[in-house]
Amino acid sequence: MELLTTNNVWMMICTALVFFMHLGFAFLEIGLTRQKNTINILFKNIFIITVGLLLYCLVGFNLMYPGEFNGIFGFAGFGLDSPLTAEGALDLAYNEGYTYWTDFLFQGMFAATAATIVSGAVAERMKIVPFMIFTIIYVGFVYPIAGSWKWGGGFLDEMGFYDFAGSTLVHSVGGWAALIAVYLLGSRIGKFKDGKPQAIPGHNIPLATAGVLILWLGWFGFNGGSVLSADPELTSITLVTTCLAAASGGVVSMLVSTALYKNLDLTMFLNGILGGLVGITAGADVMTPTSAIIVGAIAGALIVFAVTCVDKLRLDDPVGAIAVHLICGIWGTLAVGIFSTNPDHSFLTQLIGVVSYAAICIVSSFIIIFVLKKTMGIRVSEKEELEGLDAHEHGMDAYPDFRLNEH
Amino acid sequence: MELLTTNNVWMMICTALVFFMHLGFAFLEIGLTRQKNTINILFKNIFIITVGLLLYCLVGFNLMYPGEFNGIFGFAGFGLDSPLTAEGALDLAYNEGYTYWTDFLFQGMFAATAATIVSGAVAERMKIVPFMIFTIIYVGFVYPIAGSWKWGGGFLDEMGFYDFAGSTLVHSVGGWAALIAVYLLGSRIGKFKDGKPQAIPGHNIPLATAGVLILWLGWFGFNGGSVLSADPELTSITLVTTCLAAASGGVVSMLVSTALYKNLDLTMFLNGILGGLVGITAGADVMTPTSAIIVGAIAGALIVFAVTCVDKLRLDDPVGAIAVHLICGIWGTLAVGIFSTNPDHSFLTQLIGVVSYAAICIVSSFIIIFVLKKTMGIRVSEKEELEGLDAHEHGMDAYPDFRLNEH
Amino acid sequence: MELLTTNNVWMMICTALVFFMHLGFAFLEIGLTRQKNTINILFKNIFIITVGLLLYCLVGFNLMYPGEFNGIFGFAGFGLDSPLTAEGALDLAYNEGYTYWTDFLFQGMFAATAATIVSGAVAERMKIVPFMIFTIIYVGFVYPIAGSWKWGGGFLDEMGFYDFAGSTLVHSVGGWAALIAVYLLGSRIGKFKDGKPQAIPGHNIPLATAGVLILWLGWFGFNGGSVLSADPELTSITLVTTCLAAASGGVVSMLVSTALYKNLDLTMFLNGILGGLVGITAGADVMTPTSAIIVGAIAGALIVFAVTCVDKLRLDDPVGAIAVHLICGIWGTLAVGIFSTNPDHSFLTQLIGVVSYAAICIVSSFIIIFVLKKTMGIRVSEKEELEGLDAHEHGMDAYPDFRLNEH
Repeated sequence: MELLTTNNVWMMICTALVFFMHLGFAFLEIGLTRQKNTINILFKNIFIITVGLLLYCLVGFNLMYPGEFNGIFGFAGFGLDSPLTAEGALDLAYNEGYTYWTDFLFQGMFAATAATIVSGAVAERMKIVPFMIFTIIYVGFVYPIAGSWKWGGGFLDEMGFYDFAGSTLVHSVGGWAALIAVYLLGSRIGKFKDGKPQAIPGHNIPLATAGVLILWLGWFGFNGGSVLSADPELTSITLVTTCLAAASGGVVSMLVSTALYKNLDLTMFLNGILGGLVGITAGADVMTPTSAIIVGAIAGALIVFAVTCVDKLRLDDPVGAIAVHLICGIWGTLAVGIFSTNPDHSFLTQLIGVVSYAAICIVSSFIIIFVLKKTMGIRVSEKEELEGLDAHEHGMDAYPDFRLNEH
Repeated sequence: MELLTTNNVWMMICTALVFFMHLGFAFLEIGLTRQKNTINILFKNIFIITVGLLLYCLVGFNLMYPGEFNGIFGFAGFGLDSPLTAEGALDLAYNEGYTYWTDFLFQGMFAATAATIVSGAVAERMKIVPFMIFTIIYVGFVYPIAGSWKWGGGFLDEMGFYDFAGSTLVHSVGGWAALIAVYLLGSRIGKFKDGKPQAIPGHNIPLATAGVLILWLGWFGFNGGSVLSADPELTSITLVTTCLAAASGGVVSMLVSTALYKNLDLTMFLNGILGGLVGITAGADVMTPTSAIIVGAIAGALIVFAVTCVDKLRLDDPVGAIAVHLICGIWGTLAVGIFSTNPDHSFLTQLIGVVSYAAICIVSSFIIIFVLKKTMGIRVSEKEELEGLDAHEHGMDAYPDFRLNEH
Repeated sequence: MELLTTNNVWMMICTALVFFMHLGFAFLEIGLTRQKNTINILFKNIFIITVGLLLYCLVGFNLMYPGEFNGIFGFAGFGLDSPLTAEGALDLAYNEGYTYWTDFLFQGMFAATAATIVSGAVAERMKIVPFMIFTIIYVGFVYPIAGSWKWGGGFLDEMGFYDFAGSTLVHSVGGWAALIAVYLLGSRIGKFKDGKPQAIPGHNIPLATAGVLILWLGWFGFNGGSVLSADPELTSITLVTTCLAAASGGVVSMLVSTALYKNLDLTMFLNGILGGLVGITAGADVMTPTSAIIVGAIAGALIVFAVTCVDKLRLDDPVGAIAVHLICGIWGTLAVGIFSTNPDHSFLTQLIGVVSYAAICIVSSFIIIFVLKKTMGIRVSEKEELEGLDAHEHGMDAYPDFRLNEH
């Protein structure tokens, strides 16, 4: 009972920290985009958290953890249904790590993240109503069904695929959809001139920086809580590997970017930290500190090249979501096959997992967004884009007392 | 001992989270008002936290928890006086949930909240010195005496009135004073033109949004800590009901507001979240998840109508404090009488509680503010109001490097 | 095992809170300086966190806690080397309060703080590369070696010197270096006109205020975690003394400043809170609440005079780091000799500690910065300073969408 209480306290705190990541995402996204679309981004993020949580309560939790199922799709019924003891009280033996309610809430906080990743990638040009519809389908159904394949005990779990806290299950799931959405949506007006990418600077770098530090803080809960108990050894090594990977990701990204472009680029430094965090997430509990530093460092280097590569492919990803969440998510998942201290983990199984998630995410997000594009349209008009989504979709300014530059 | 330690850890974390709510309130209030009054609002909030805590140490704690008393007014003496064992060490058996020190600090963090609610409502036109005097009296004396009626074991507690974490004891107590203050103070210049309310847009919506997310995070501690132990079942169901009510409050508020006004209003979305949080606070530990969603949803709808109603009454409440804290505080308290899983809770007793708090708060805040108005005056001069309180009361600008619009 | 788990949970949470202080420092520093140097300050802070943590992993932890050593300098080897049981598992009996990994991470989060303090003092005019070199040496070597004298069991620990959470070991260590750096660097252009100090207002007071509240929150972990266990009595009295000292520091600073200068100065209020926090840090676990209020109050008064005094000495410290961290750090350390409830603490020993740290910090920081000054130079060109470090060192603007004043 004492141990359950302690475990449950830890899990509730981690839940709170993962919730707080949504402020980190919101700050990062608005900070790296233009002021004229700020309200729109904030609205989307608030929508994702609230609707995401309600959907996870209604269907998501029971799609993701269906109990006994065929390993691909299962559903335990609508709503929450707490396990009871014979006396009708909450069954505290449900799990030695936490109660049923904590389980739901911790997982529910994760669920919204996938759509948030997409939100950043499609910023400044996607219509809000189709984005809301996409969010409902992707967070409500695709994310939990895909999640059930591993965390719900599905076929990838049986194969021995490992993804501790979601390099693939969360970050790549968001990243693949971001890639598809960006591809179907097209680039922002002015992003490519004569085929060359143009910098569209973010309007509030202090908030973007705050966003990254808040996300790092949130990762204490994201990874620390994924131990699913307060086990002293596992939780503490997880926090160490998480923080070391974040640090090395940032430093390497900054060094590589400075070597290539001769500037001390704060944005690249920040994205390197996020890359390190995403990269370590799949194996944070099965890495030595040294391995964590290496995994983070490679993620940091990857970020720099991936950002350039995305640009070269003429894809317009305003916040670097594809580089951070997709590329580093894949890298982190494969890295488990290389660096894990658990001999049961293999590179091949990890690769199969990556490919499986690529398949479901690419197919499902393509279908959803393609249908939306062909029916209601997904892109705002040129006039709306130029004048900003805030004025047109929301009739509000983010900073009405400040004099602003038009661009 | 193990369990006490765990309980105490949880309570200390909740204390930290409630403390952090003050940043949430500060961000929300400055975000929803004009830049020229930003320093003033920040100053008031910092004043409330620091002076509120010192007053709670000096008199508040012992007014609120006087031990055996007549049920209406008691006082256990000035300052903190920790209970000791026969050997002179701190009596850890004081409470199985936490130590005397944790008890004081957790309750002390709550105390300042009531005045903070008023701060938002009177923003942009109230003189700072009378506000400081009001704060001292209201936080130092009215709040703890009123609180003793229920949480200190007073007459409402004996009647069976229930207010888990303060829909009434904290939020309505602040909300009633906000209503009285706004009434006595009058509306801001330009708020009503030919009797019609004019929008005075807030100057920093990203910070307002951050404020709401920080407040939601803080509510993990506000409600989670009100269990007064780390009991796994009670704390975790409380967090679930809290988050679901917040989500449904926001979504319903957004839907109702969009249905009525054809916009996707971020401010209403945010206030709906807060309304859901205030609404669930009275009964977060005695609701099913489904009830929590309903309570939040009704709070979200109420917000939209209450904001309009406050406007119609020609009351000028810049941040929507009356709608959020008073109306949803009353609703949440009454909702316990409808949805509570505890059959001892009754609608009538809840109503008696609401009326009792209305009485003490309306009378005391009217007397305090009316006397201040008749003696030193409570409203800044027209010139000060137009040029902003920052320049006149503090001689400082919040954003000296930015070019600003005059309005 | 239950108790270890609980202790470890508390320590991990405190680690997260101390990490979060870096956002507080970043917000405070950018808020109190001009917008044209914002990116530069953020970059430095991100550099300090990431590189600081990696250095602490590589050498710092084993310099600070070398095990048996001569009391002045010891080194337990490169990298992390977790203690193992005979069976090769992590030795959980390493410490009854937390695991080896938690120990490293908690201490690592502290390490970066010293350089962050310097960052604020040298803001707006120091070249970034020499600052990075200084950071590496000071955080990587000076801080942990100096720290070993007390927390590593060195000669000051043996003498009975007491510094609970680092008024001296962290804050003065940063403060002395800030003093030396400011002296060697000279004042910003325009700071002194005909020998009189000119106000150079900070560009974003909401973020500065948020920074202080985040730092206060972080101090729950900074002091609360320095108990090195979740002991209910010690942790909770520590949080109470910490918060009361912060409150009284702020209030007294505000009152003194208003009495002297007839304004209600928000910045002084904020610095008073920080002064109270730094002041209580050396003895937060050995003070009564009343003593804590007195210690904080004196710190608050000291701040006002110290800020004036620093100005009079023609030292230009944009964020008040010397007054807050050095002066209040010294005061707090000496205050242990006056107010401690532990009769073994003596004023003289505290003074010896203060002087010892003054010696190592003044000498080492002078050598490092003087050598940097004579070799690569430490100050940006006049043109760079006038146009801002963001444009020249980073090629980025913090707020590209906003119209800004030149100054």
